[in-house]
Amino acid sequence: MKHTLIVLCMAALAVAGCGKAADGIIRTEVPARPAGQENVIGLTAEPIETVRIGVVGLGMRGGDAVGRLSLVPGAVVTALCDLLPERVENSLGTLASMGKPAPTGTYSGEEESWRGLCEQEDIDLVYICTDWLHHYPIAMYAMECGKHVAIEVPAALDMEEIWGLINQSEKTRRHCMMLENCCYDFFEMSTLEMARRGCFGEVIHVEGSYLHNLDPFWDEYWNDWRLSYNRRFRGDNYPTHGLGPICQVLGIHRGDRMTTLVSMDTKPFRGAKTASERYGKEVTDFAHGDQTSTLIRTEKGKTILIQHDVMTPRPYSRMYQVVGTDGYAAKYPVQQYCFREGEKGEKTISGEELKAFQSGYRNPILTAELERVAREVGGHGGMDFIMDYRLVYCLRHGLPLDMDVYDLAEWCCVAPLSRLSLENGSMPVEVPDFTRGAWDRVPAFHYALVEE
Amino acid sequence: MKHTLIVLCMAALAVAGCGKAADGIIRTEVPARPAGQENVIGLTAEPIETVRIGVVGLGMRGGDAVGRLSLVPGAVVTALCDLLPERVENSLGTLASMGKPAPTGTYSGEEESWRGLCEQEDIDLVYICTDWLHHYPIAMYAMECGKHVAIEVPAALDMEEIWGLINQSEKTRRHCMMLENCCYDFFEMSTLEMARRGCFGEVIHVEGSYLHNLDPFWDEYWNDWRLSYNRRFRGDNYPTHGLGPICQVLGIHRGDRMTTLVSMDTKPFRGAKTASERYGKEVTDFAHGDQTSTLIRTEKGKTILIQHDVMTPRPYSRMYQVVGTDGYAAKYPVQQYCFREGEKGEKTISGEELKAFQSGYRNPILTAELERVAREVGGHGGMDFIMDYRLVYCLRHGLPLDMDVYDLAEWCCVAPLSRLSLENGSMPVEVPDFTRGAWDRVPAFHYALVEE
Repeated sequence: MKHTLIVLCMAALAVAGCGKAADGIIRTEVPARPAGQENVIGLTAEPIETVRIGVVGLGMRGGDAVGRLSLVPGAVVTALCDLLPERVENSLGTLASMGKPAPTGTYSGEEESWRGLCEQEDIDLVYICTDWLHHYPIAMYAMECGKHVAIEVPAALDMEEIWGLINQSEKTRRHCMMLENCCYDFFEMSTLEMARRGCFGEVIHVEGSYLHNLDPFWDEYWNDWRLSYNRRFRGDNYPTHGLGPICQVLGIHRGDRMTTLVSMDTKPFRGAKTASERYGKEVTDFAHGDQTSTLIRTEKGKTILIQHDVMTPRPYSRMYQVVGTDGYAAKYPVQQYCFREGEKGEKTISGEELKAFQSGYRNPILTAELERVAREVGGHGGMDFIMDYRLVYCLRHGLPLDMDVYDLAEWCCVAPLSRLSLENGSMPVEVPDFTRGAWDRVPAFHYALVEE
Repeated sequence: MKHTLIVLCMAALAVAGCGKAADGIIRTEVPARPAGQENVIGLTAEPIETVRIGVVGLGMRGGDAVGRLSLVPGAVVTALCDLLPERVENSLGTLASMGKPAPTGTYSGEEESWRGLCEQEDIDLVYICTDWLHHYPIAMYAMECGKHVAIEVPAALDMEEIWGLINQSEKTRRHCMMLENCCYDFFEMSTLEMARRGCFGEVIHVEGSYLHNLDPFWDEYWNDWRLSYNRRFRGDNYPTHGLGPICQVLGIHRGDRMTTLVSMDTKPFRGAKTASERYGKEVTDFAHGDQTSTLIRTEKGKTILIQHDVMTPRPYSRMYQVVGTDGYAAKYPVQQYCFREGEKGEKTISGEELKAFQSGYRNPILTAELERVAREVGGHGGMDFIMDYRLVYCLRHGLPLDMDVYDLAEWCCVAPLSRLSLENGSMPVEVPDFTRGAWDRVPAFHYALVEE
């Protein structure tokens, strides 16, 4: 018996060229680069002696950021903005209690109060910590006003926003960085350095995730924005914590690039129940599946697995797994490395042995002093501070940032593209080349550092 | 900007009905059930007081099986077969040293020596431990000769073999069980019992894998069959250890069924190198990707993740992860359970606390005496013995076996169907209903036990 392959086109989609090309992949439109505009690979800007920062959104993330940024050498908070005046007051109190100067401008009370902040003269960087829906308009306007921007995760929610930010950064030559703090956690930074030095041989497969029971947090989001968003949209809408560190290991748009993804999710068994309990009536239109898994293939024939589950009770995990031809790393639930040993075997190390091994692979950005301060200041154990420090360091020295707008695009696109795959029965979806032709110009991920 | 969806048909495939139906899924042919033939859900056979067993294939797995089966109450090895006479001699030695009677028949020396064993009168069960390629012809002939069969994993390699075994079992009314020992490991058995009692709420997502660096083992396979097979075939060709235990948790063809899969693999970065080194010349036609990941969705909207990697150095893992609306279990790299605690939080348990918790969920087949003997006899820590014990127990009492030919089909089909997805750019592939209409007849997985 031979397989009879019955291959059918998808009436559910707007079929454009059925029967013509050969691969069946769903493609989204890649807008042509506007005339006179160039890519921002390796973008640098004039060095800034003291980086003046306006923080927009002073809730869960922004409130902490104000205090943290004030401790970064060469940074000063010169503006604060939140819809809620009491949050601005809180942050003013934070600055006062730290003996920091009062900001030049404060903005609150109206839906678009942030416009005033973007227009303020003495700001170099707009640091955006609002709910997801406001990231895009604020970032776009801030760049239009000539400011660099740093945007909380996820910086953009759909392909239109992603291409919008790319075009705006390319047009204005302003930095547009997503605040992917998980790239700066200690295990990830050591492991990246090991990968760069070839400890794992060729890295062939990586994994990342956001597996975090958010039950204790749903009350914390202003206007219920987060659960509401999950109710409306299917797909892995929070992929960047998982993707950031592993894409740096793979060198995405630094010699390799994502080409195709497929996604599969469960029904919203728990999500619908959580929403029903919160809203006091049965919710039957909850879109977001409890567990979403996405597989991505790269140009070089490597694979990425990304997972998302914020509904079920399980140990927190970002997975962070690196599989190489000669070695392996995994962070959760216990940190492990494994390498070839002898002619054929392998050896797994963890605990104290792992710590000793790691000490030989210090990440070049992580000086002893920076680590000490970061652990003291905290912010997810220190990684938030290291991220802020690097951002300010690079701006001060006129260096390219660690993460550019294409990283932002690649890490955010999994939300809308996984949705597209899911809504079409797990069909493969093309991941566009967001650099529009420059993905292999830089050979590997590297940090910009001032020569000492 | 709206997404422009460009959906294309696949010229690479034999396109049967392009533009007509609606979903784009690749379907394989489901052969109509032959007239007069019925499904074997809950199949029973006449009780057998002493189960007489012929073992075929006395290499890595079969040699051990001879000794192990001889210790199972009510079982006797009455025939031995291997292509290599010295292996038959070895097993005769094993039986003699245990004080067991010599088998009635021994068969060796010719490619089809196993035919003689299948035809031998005093055999109830043919236990097949050959290389993968011989599983199917031997099992088919054994059933034709009126014997029950138990087949090592994977029992079948392609859809033709899978449907062949199903039809033969349905036609002959003989048991056709795959020897999926991992269903009988201790953590899996406790966790299955917890799932049955609702500890995890609704189980929504499960994971399994075969992640095992086979470098130390390639020399052990007769005629290099295993690496040769990997050279020839892309796809997850060893999915059953991962799938078995988690499909029992989900109740596959016991109230739910797999409907669609998508698969993605890496290039054979390491496989090609391993083969080149073994064969002393560059291998450029190595088909099997080093790491293969497959996502499967079920009728009830649950998901399964299966992974395969036998090439890279990493800690052994079958993953075995169970995600439920109210709880979580994972076996590797450390055993963990996690449950809701309080109104919103969760609590993870491991170590001694986990052992104490497990003791409240003893699997009904695992008597204290069976556990004691199994741990003493060994065989992957005891699970092999428990599997053999259950097989013989059910045959002796005329009960349905724990695993039927549809389990075999479901767990094996991921090899050919993942290959089909991979060879078509990760397109979704339909998983057939191997029961041909009876998948929801039994409400949940259960063990048949004699009422005491």
